[in-house]
Amino acid sequence: MNNIINCLVENEPGVLARIVSMISGRGYNIETLNVAPTQDRKVSKMTMVVPGDAHIIEQVTHQLTKLVNVIEVVNMTNQRHMNRELILVRVASKNHVNRSEIVDLATLFNAKVIAVQEDSVTVQMVGNQDHVSDFLHLFEPYHIMDISRSGVIAVGREVAAAKPVS
Amino acid sequence: MNNIINCLVENEPGVLARIVSMISGRGYNIETLNVAPTQDRKVSKMTMVVPGDAHIIEQVTHQLTKLVNVIEVVNMTNQRHMNRELILVRVASKNHVNRSEIVDLATLFNAKVIAVQEDSVTVQMVGNQDHVSDFLHLFEPYHIMDISRSGVIAVGREVAAAKPVS
Repeated sequence: MNNIINCLVENEPGVLARIVSMISGRGYNIETLNVAPTQDRKVSKMTMVVPGDAHIIEQVTHQLTKLVNVIEVVNMTNQRHMNRELILVRVASKNHVNRSEIVDLATLFNAKVIAVQEDSVTVQMVGNQDHVSDFLHLFEPYHIMDISRSGVIAVGREVAAAKPVS
Repeated sequence: MNNIINCLVENEPGVLARIVSMISGRGYNIETLNVAPTQDRKVSKMTMVVPGDAHIIEQVTHQLTKLVNVIEVVNMTNQRHMNRELILVRVASKNHVNRSEIVDLATLFNAKVIAVQEDSVTVQMVGNQDHVSDFLHLFEPYHIMDISRSGVIAVGREVAAAKPVS
């Protein structure tokens, strides 16, 4: 099972290195990882997809919370959330071969063709983990010239409970 | 200036840790970073946005190429490419306040409203570095409940030169 872990960290030198070293040092596997600033430039948010059962994920989150400069660790898989990943893929289509097939496939995934060139078509796709996996699978038979995946990001969708009127 | 560096690495334990440690150890700043598998599961692609002048970027790419398990390092900024970033932002809109304003702003950026709840609107936006920076700037006055940025990814758009007919 792929668990999505969000981690808020202070934007200090060495934080990312400490986190990544801890995880790989203990032999946990990271499927995708990304980190970027939040609206507060002093705080960055990191999202990791870590395969493993509940026990492994509990260990990872526990170890993460003990690290310096780590503000908050949330296993998004345990709560209502929305996850998305961005993919850019440049598919070979020399002399227009396969071009309409590739464009049709992109359309089925609500993906966007962002470049058509004499040797290729470049497609931009956003989806949740299942969509991304289907998308990559269906593009496998083609010749992929270049691919970039952002890794999964996630935001919560829990609504704060309404306060009782006093 | 923000430079986009793509790095192909062997999918071995410790590679990411070595790269991140080298960069932070030498005091270079990473604005965003992400890493995910390519179509070849043995190879991952990492994209880093590193602020700095040409001299700094030359040093970073040179140091990266010297690391074990690093297959290829490309400064995308030096070549024709397309870069994109994905952002999920949950904006407070208690009792519908600001809701239509937020939706209008999202529409201007071709962003997609992916959740409307009693306390918030969640928007998914994809754009290049300039679009993302404008988008974040215009959402600053609102109360951001949660934000996740994927960091920039990039694919090349150079077309291979046609071979002369012999």
